[in-house]
Amino acid sequence: MVNVGIAGASGYTGLELIRLLVKHPEVRVSALTSETYQGQRVADVFPALAGHIDLDFVRLDSSLTKDCDIVFLALPHTTAMNHVPGFLKDNCRVVDLSADFRLKSAEVFETWYSVAHSQQDILGQAVYGLPELHREQITAAKLVANPGCYPTGVILALAPLMTTDWVDLGSIVADCKSGVSGAGRKPALNTQFAECNEVVSAYGLGTHRHTPEIEQEISTLAGRELRVTFSPHLMPMTRGLLSTIYLNLVRDLTLDELDKYYREIYKNEPFVRILNPGVFANTHFVVHSNYCDIGLQIDARNRRIILTSAIDNLVKGAAGQAVQNMNLMLGIDETTGLDSPGIFP
Amino acid sequence: MVNVGIAGASGYTGLELIRLLVKHPEVRVSALTSETYQGQRVADVFPALAGHIDLDFVRLDSSLTKDCDIVFLALPHTTAMNHVPGFLKDNCRVVDLSADFRLKSAEVFETWYSVAHSQQDILGQAVYGLPELHREQITAAKLVANPGCYPTGVILALAPLMTTDWVDLGSIVADCKSGVSGAGRKPALNTQFAECNEVVSAYGLGTHRHTPEIEQEISTLAGRELRVTFSPHLMPMTRGLLSTIYLNLVRDLTLDELDKYYREIYKNEPFVRILNPGVFANTHFVVHSNYCDIGLQIDARNRRIILTSAIDNLVKGAAGQAVQNMNLMLGIDETTGLDSPGIFP
Amino acid sequence: MVNVGIAGASGYTGLELIRLLVKHPEVRVSALTSETYQGQRVADVFPALAGHIDLDFVRLDSSLTKDCDIVFLALPHTTAMNHVPGFLKDNCRVVDLSADFRLKSAEVFETWYSVAHSQQDILGQAVYGLPELHREQITAAKLVANPGCYPTGVILALAPLMTTDWVDLGSIVADCKSGVSGAGRKPALNTQFAECNEVVSAYGLGTHRHTPEIEQEISTLAGRELRVTFSPHLMPMTRGLLSTIYLNLVRDLTLDELDKYYREIYKNEPFVRILNPGVFANTHFVVHSNYCDIGLQIDARNRRIILTSAIDNLVKGAAGQAVQNMNLMLGIDETTGLDSPGIFP
Amino acid sequence: MVNVGIAGASGYTGLELIRLLVKHPEVRVSALTSETYQGQRVADVFPALAGHIDLDFVRLDSSLTKDCDIVFLALPHTTAMNHVPGFLKDNCRVVDLSADFRLKSAEVFETWYSVAHSQQDILGQAVYGLPELHREQITAAKLVANPGCYPTGVILALAPLMTTDWVDLGSIVADCKSGVSGAGRKPALNTQFAECNEVVSAYGLGTHRHTPEIEQEISTLAGRELRVTFSPHLMPMTRGLLSTIYLNLVRDLTLDELDKYYREIYKNEPFVRILNPGVFANTHFVVHSNYCDIGLQIDARNRRIILTSAIDNLVKGAAGQAVQNMNLMLGIDETTGLDSPGIFP
Repeated sequence: MVNVGIAGASGYTGLELIRLLVKHPEVRVSALTSETYQGQRVADVFPALAGHIDLDFVRLDSSLTKDCDIVFLALPHTTAMNHVPGFLKDNCRVVDLSADFRLKSAEVFETWYSVAHSQQDILGQAVYGLPELHREQITAAKLVANPGCYPTGVILALAPLMTTDWVDLGSIVADCKSGVSGAGRKPALNTQFAECNEVVSAYGLGTHRHTPEIEQEISTLAGRELRVTFSPHLMPMTRGLLSTIYLNLVRDLTLDELDKYYREIYKNEPFVRILNPGVFANTHFVVHSNYCDIGLQIDARNRRIILTSAIDNLVKGAAGQAVQNMNLMLGIDETTGLDSPGIFP
Repeated sequence: MVNVGIAGASGYTGLELIRLLVKHPEVRVSALTSETYQGQRVADVFPALAGHIDLDFVRLDSSLTKDCDIVFLALPHTTAMNHVPGFLKDNCRVVDLSADFRLKSAEVFETWYSVAHSQQDILGQAVYGLPELHREQITAAKLVANPGCYPTGVILALAPLMTTDWVDLGSIVADCKSGVSGAGRKPALNTQFAECNEVVSAYGLGTHRHTPEIEQEISTLAGRELRVTFSPHLMPMTRGLLSTIYLNLVRDLTLDELDKYYREIYKNEPFVRILNPGVFANTHFVVHSNYCDIGLQIDARNRRIILTSAIDNLVKGAAGQAVQNMNLMLGIDETTGLDSPGIFP
Repeated sequence: MVNVGIAGASGYTGLELIRLLVKHPEVRVSALTSETYQGQRVADVFPALAGHIDLDFVRLDSSLTKDCDIVFLALPHTTAMNHVPGFLKDNCRVVDLSADFRLKSAEVFETWYSVAHSQQDILGQAVYGLPELHREQITAAKLVANPGCYPTGVILALAPLMTTDWVDLGSIVADCKSGVSGAGRKPALNTQFAECNEVVSAYGLGTHRHTPEIEQEISTLAGRELRVTFSPHLMPMTRGLLSTIYLNLVRDLTLDELDKYYREIYKNEPFVRILNPGVFANTHFVVHSNYCDIGLQIDARNRRIILTSAIDNLVKGAAGQAVQNMNLMLGIDETTGLDSPGIFP
Repeated sequence: MVNVGIAGASGYTGLELIRLLVKHPEVRVSALTSETYQGQRVADVFPALAGHIDLDFVRLDSSLTKDCDIVFLALPHTTAMNHVPGFLKDNCRVVDLSADFRLKSAEVFETWYSVAHSQQDILGQAVYGLPELHREQITAAKLVANPGCYPTGVILALAPLMTTDWVDLGSIVADCKSGVSGAGRKPALNTQFAECNEVVSAYGLGTHRHTPEIEQEISTLAGRELRVTFSPHLMPMTRGLLSTIYLNLVRDLTLDELDKYYREIYKNEPFVRILNPGVFANTHFVVHSNYCDIGLQIDARNRRIILTSAIDNLVKGAAGQAVQNMNLMLGIDETTGLDSPGIFP
């Protein structure tokens, strides 16, 4: 049995990690930290977990490495990074769910997060934890930077096209729609029920911090600097993330060709499903599961490809992908603890 | 491997059965019937199941018994009963999720369902499938009548008190709040999104068909004819069922006494959780799980007990309980395939 | 033109007051206070109001009385009361939407609000602002205590029965279901979207502060001390409040008799509607309007009356009723600015 | 007093017309037709309207023209057109809320609606009822084709740019998000609560029938054939429509220039509001009102303009705009009956 810890376990990604890990057959949840609830029983704070976990929340300190072989960091951006060196020094593997190690360039990080990166010496060790792109490096990694929810859905949809000459790579627009749980569990006015219920709103158009993460990965694939227009929107629902992505075609292409190509690319991926031609991605197909569904459409009148992708922002967009990364890092079958269908309705 | 079939598999309880059974380690889903979708691939109709089931929907006919050792009937009330004799004759066990075999009295059935019972000769064989009350009979049964969602939550909350002399058994009022999925998947005006979103409404006050089911079970426990005022309400949410139940005390009772008593009664039940004193049942603790949570409160100013119970109407209130019954009927550990925590948020 | 001010105008009841008053033909909104937004333009903070109001939020201080003939206090409980003497001294009428002047007894106030009443000398001047019960006193009042949302719905449903000998007045149970906006606009964990969306929960069973308010009013009507079991529940919707109320009958009564009686009692009330027999109150009939709908049902099997009442918690349950009280205090037609139908869907 | 009728008054746009017209000071609602509810009292079918209307639903026949000076047609596409000649012959003005007279070309109509246009001789009389573009023609019209909800939001956002040389007019992508009420009141599986609650889905990508309507209007403005990629999405909310629109810049442009330009263009429009720079359109600013809010953003990294526009799909997107058109046709002040702020929360 592998001992795992979660730092910041009382937020939504932390909770989702607990839910997945208590049913994972090859690990034992050994330590859960929470600033807010330290000293309280986990099952008292979250009665949904009663009968499934028998721990108290503890403070985040160095003792965690004694208890754990691997640690998930579900801490705020810019603070997570300061905890990583300690864990690595004690030979404890780390899956960091914050943004701190996702960007390879400390300079780009500083530009978008307005703070200097405090761990530039270990930045190079971090592997971007999207298994569909970086499976081998993840398997060997000590430190995995778990992707953001938006980048996961957008990159998986875009990746196959980045190595073709079918599209104008300067034309990418990603219009994304996320459930509110993506904003985290900390009380804030804009995520109060009566503020975001029955409301659709755009935010961070052209300026959201997930932009450089998408650009880094698709640029690597394309072999040149790419930029995207990325537009996040807040949806009146708890979970689910739909991305609608537009690219201009530079040659004729049939839906059938596109479909065949995507199926070939992703044929061995356990968590990527290409939807039947004419079916668009729909969050209800994927919520509560680790799948990323991809729908394909060609707008022939306008010579554009319209991609849709759907994930559960807390599973494939966060905790599920983190477990997938853990499985790879530990040499466990990649789908262990994750192979459930979505739940509908 | 036991072969199981689901008749009426494309409704919400049918779908939930599929979801639970495809991950159940000791059964194989062999046949799924659907009038609407016969001939279509299950995963095409419900893309959430893609990768988890490789069947087409078929028509409901007698061939089902060749394929299946046990069948779940997720068919409409008053039609389900006509299919049962055929299954039993072919030695195929039946868990009937309709109301057709829940009431022991054909007369009571006719009063509430406005139709004569067509299978009065086998009515006596049916066991009311609430494991917490009838575990032994279920284990030996060929035909289990799976309880209604409301009765499940109300009976489990009330049962311990029915054998005490602490309360006025004529004072029971059960005010229940259910998510919309309880109304089924058939399109209807009152369950259209824009009709029931952002709306709370009462329906069937004093006349709902789950009333005699509750009364039958608590009367048996109490050893005398009891009646309840049962008030269902429709909530603007997909899943979850909260019952708030009022009884007049006829003696002084502390919350601590009540708590101890309930814990003792349910101490060995894997799917009933007594909440800490002062914590009320909350649907978010139980949705997507097979738990029934019970909260206890004493309104000392008014000498009343206020019970709250919460279930997921599609799990403990339907498909999960049906799987629990199947496990008992097949001699499998009762919690197999059901021992997951609720999913929150 | 009458000049009106709103203290605490950036909360939900304050906002609803603004919305109603900017379209009210006989008043001018002169001053809006907000601790959070002072100095900012109202229409910048709330773009929905752009084009309808041309003011900045200001601090709450004594200058308000110079600008205003009447002031609405939408301030937190226990702080509102400290502002009232100043307004009254300057001859500015007050409609207080907090709980501070609703209870006639300072002792009862202290019991339920855990703080001594600081303005006991003027407590006697306050009129409980439920026009259907106290229209004449309201008309003459300088200080009106606007009822709580739950009490409004419950008292209006119960009032007619309090003066009959048809029911056991010791048997009252009020099971109430409220939208989340009733909890106010201040960020809190339990009203975060992902916490209360898709969830029904009970809270304050037997202990909620609206209990003494209901008891005070129905006791006065009945001419003796009455107690009620009052159970609030939080619904996953923004607006609307449904009350389901149970009373034991002590004589035979037909639904027709009950219907006739209620219609007679409320025949001249502009904002109380008795629903057709067999129709239960439904929040969608009333949201965004000042109506209180009352549905009547007799559960003959159990000899109980089941009343349902529905209001919009922010309108008849708060701001609308406050405007109704203002109209009465100013000698304006009572329905001015309030005579719109509910909005559905 | 002008007598108005509504054909198809029991759908959502019909209902919204009733709600607006019963409070309109210069008209009297004389006749309401409904196939489903003919012979029933309007207030019995829709209790929200009790106290506001004293009519029965009637069948749609020629007698309507005797009662009415102007008729709103809220009938299904392709059937509405057959009723128009009769009304016009009897000198009854028509505002048609169906799509039947929106497209100037019968050929384009047939391409997108798969049915030949049955009234090609009067097609030329119809005026596209977007007052911001066609106010003068509407004022003189006997037959107004009320725009679709999506085209209203998209065209109003795009219009100012169509006459500039700032953007590549071949680069327009409109990603739109609509509440479920836009799909109408007829029961259907995909708009059942449990099917679309907590779900975001795309539909009709590149093929939706509102596409030619948008293209017709912006092409007219630009003076040349334009095409757009139009992507509708279904949101889990009842009302509200947000459009996010992308265009490539062909020259440098500051947000300030863009803002000044839009304000100038729309400075006299009562129902178009340009949001402050940096504020994106948000459905909660506009629901229950007739406003179209427009937000402006420049994505300088990608040299794109990102427009956001928000409307209430049932008001400015349907019934409110129809009343605005009626006001113009009758020579009444354009804002009469429509000048209320949005309702939030």
